[in-house]
Amino acid sequence: MEKREQLYEGKAKRIYRTSLADQYWVEYKDDATAFNGEKKGTITGKGELNNRITAIFFTLLKERGIDNHFIRLLSPTEQLVRKVEIIPLEVVVRNIAAGSLAKRLGMAEGTALPHPVVEFYYKDDALGDPLVNHSHIKVLGVASEDDLAVLERIGLQVNEVLQEYLRERGVILVDFKLEFGRTPEGEILLADEISPDTCRFWDAGTMEKLDKDRFRRDLGNVEEAYREMLKRLGGEAHV
Amino acid sequence: MEKREQLYEGKAKRIYRTSLADQYWVEYKDDATAFNGEKKGTITGKGELNNRITAIFFTLLKERGIDNHFIRLLSPTEQLVRKVEIIPLEVVVRNIAAGSLAKRLGMAEGTALPHPVVEFYYKDDALGDPLVNHSHIKVLGVASEDDLAVLERIGLQVNEVLQEYLRERGVILVDFKLEFGRTPEGEILLADEISPDTCRFWDAGTMEKLDKDRFRRDLGNVEEAYREMLKRLGGEAHV
Ligand SMILES: Nc1ncnc2c1ncn2[C@@H]1O[C@H](COP(=O)(O)OP(=O)(O)O)[C@@H](O)[C@H]1O
Ligand SMILES: Nc1ncnc2c1ncn2[C@@H]1O[C@H](COP(=O)(O)OP(=O)(O)O)[C@@H](O)[C@H]1O
Ligand SMILES: [Mg+2]
Ligand SMILES: [Mg+2]
Repeated sequence: MEKREQLYEGKAKRIYRTSLADQYWVEYKDDATAFNGEKKGTITGKGELNNRITAIFFTLLKERGIDNHFIRLLSPTEQLVRKVEIIPLEVVVRNIAAGSLAKRLGMAEGTALPHPVVEFYYKDDALGDPLVNHSHIKVLGVASEDDLAVLERIGLQVNEVLQEYLRERGVILVDFKLEFGRTPEGEILLADEISPDTCRFWDAGTMEKLDKDRFRRDLGNVEEAYREMLKRLGGEAHV
Repeated sequence: MEKREQLYEGKAKRIYRTSLADQYWVEYKDDATAFNGEKKGTITGKGELNNRITAIFFTLLKERGIDNHFIRLLSPTEQLVRKVEIIPLEVVVRNIAAGSLAKRLGMAEGTALPHPVVEFYYKDDALGDPLVNHSHIKVLGVASEDDLAVLERIGLQVNEVLQEYLRERGVILVDFKLEFGRTPEGEILLADEISPDTCRFWDAGTMEKLDKDRFRRDLGNVEEAYREMLKRLGGEAHV
């Protein structure tokens, strides 16, 4: 596999073309941002940790019948994925009230939700990634009602698989964000990443946060938390 | 009909008990508030104008088969309504991008929407009436999926009736907010008010605003705009 020109650089990853038209080379960075880019920093080793954690989750999901863009690891910080056209929606699934949901509904952080909550956010940095409903999405023209049913169904399936897998490893899956894309054949495919940057993980024993909230809220030991998550998943980092 | 003790006072109306267990006496006030009560003022004559405008709209809707709480006018500023238990959701229907929708989706105010947008806001002053989706509403436990389908259906029906009626009177119905309640029999009933306080009305010729945005945005001639709306609807105020 050959790494060709860089296509774009996001807040957490760089995407490169490869010699194959339908595959991208993804490089995970140590850069950390929060609050729509207002807070910036570096988490040493994050690129490798998130690359490996994402690979483990996506491999697990594929084993459980949930197809996704992951093909294989290329290096400690790089992976090969299927190229998709990203649907500009963040699909958030929540099991426990935290962050913006706790604020929106006036619930104490940590309150168990009676059933998983699914939210769509419009992926637009300039607008601050606003919450949108089906009716807004129809106006935006980015997904049909049928597409939304698929995103919601896969979101809830991912939740079931990851919740159980993490529970066995002493981790509570509080919430997470997914991104989906369309393949050249028009199929909707789970893409992007699943990592402590995009999930809330709480230690089931101590309730300690093992995710990006440590960075957002200046709780310290950010790198250690990401490293602990990789360890819980049975992975190993080389840095 | 007898006016008994006051049950509650909102930002725009006072609700009183009557001698009948299933009917309330509503008094419309001249008080005006905006931005969740942050901006306060008085619009002389608003109580009478909104009382009369609401009566006209609710009478029209009943004629068109959309049942609602309105029974009859009691005085220039008062009306008799059926008592309901208000569902704490604001149902917003929009035809043209304005206000928070224009901001949320990054659209220029005045952009015609390809189809009506329906939104639900959780009626909670302390939380700032946040936008909520079906999944949030299920967690809040204030309405079932079936209830939401009813609210959405009636909202769109009201939109059809009012849009046509206003178009014939040279007014564009930009958007509006409805509230619904449950009767003691458990039936969902359209309630509250439909007035320049709760709708955006634009003059079809000049695009001049004939609603509360004149107050929100300090455009002047607030009372005149409300008075013009009553005139367009064929009503007459006595103050
Ligand atoms: N398989 C894929 N094909 C194309 N683009 C992808 C794929 N997976 C993820 N992306 C996109 O790569 C970009 C870079 O990722 P990231 O740095 O996380 O961006 P962001 O700053 O938007 O969070 C994002 O726009 C993401 O949606
Ligand atoms: N038919 C009804 N039965 C009971 N309550 C009603 C009815 N119609 C409206 N209400 C409620 O009357 C209250 C007073 O109205 P208003 O002054 O507009 O309140 P708010 O400050 O919440 O906007 C509101 O809570 C409204 O939902
Ligand atoms: Mg990202
Ligand atoms: Mg009101």
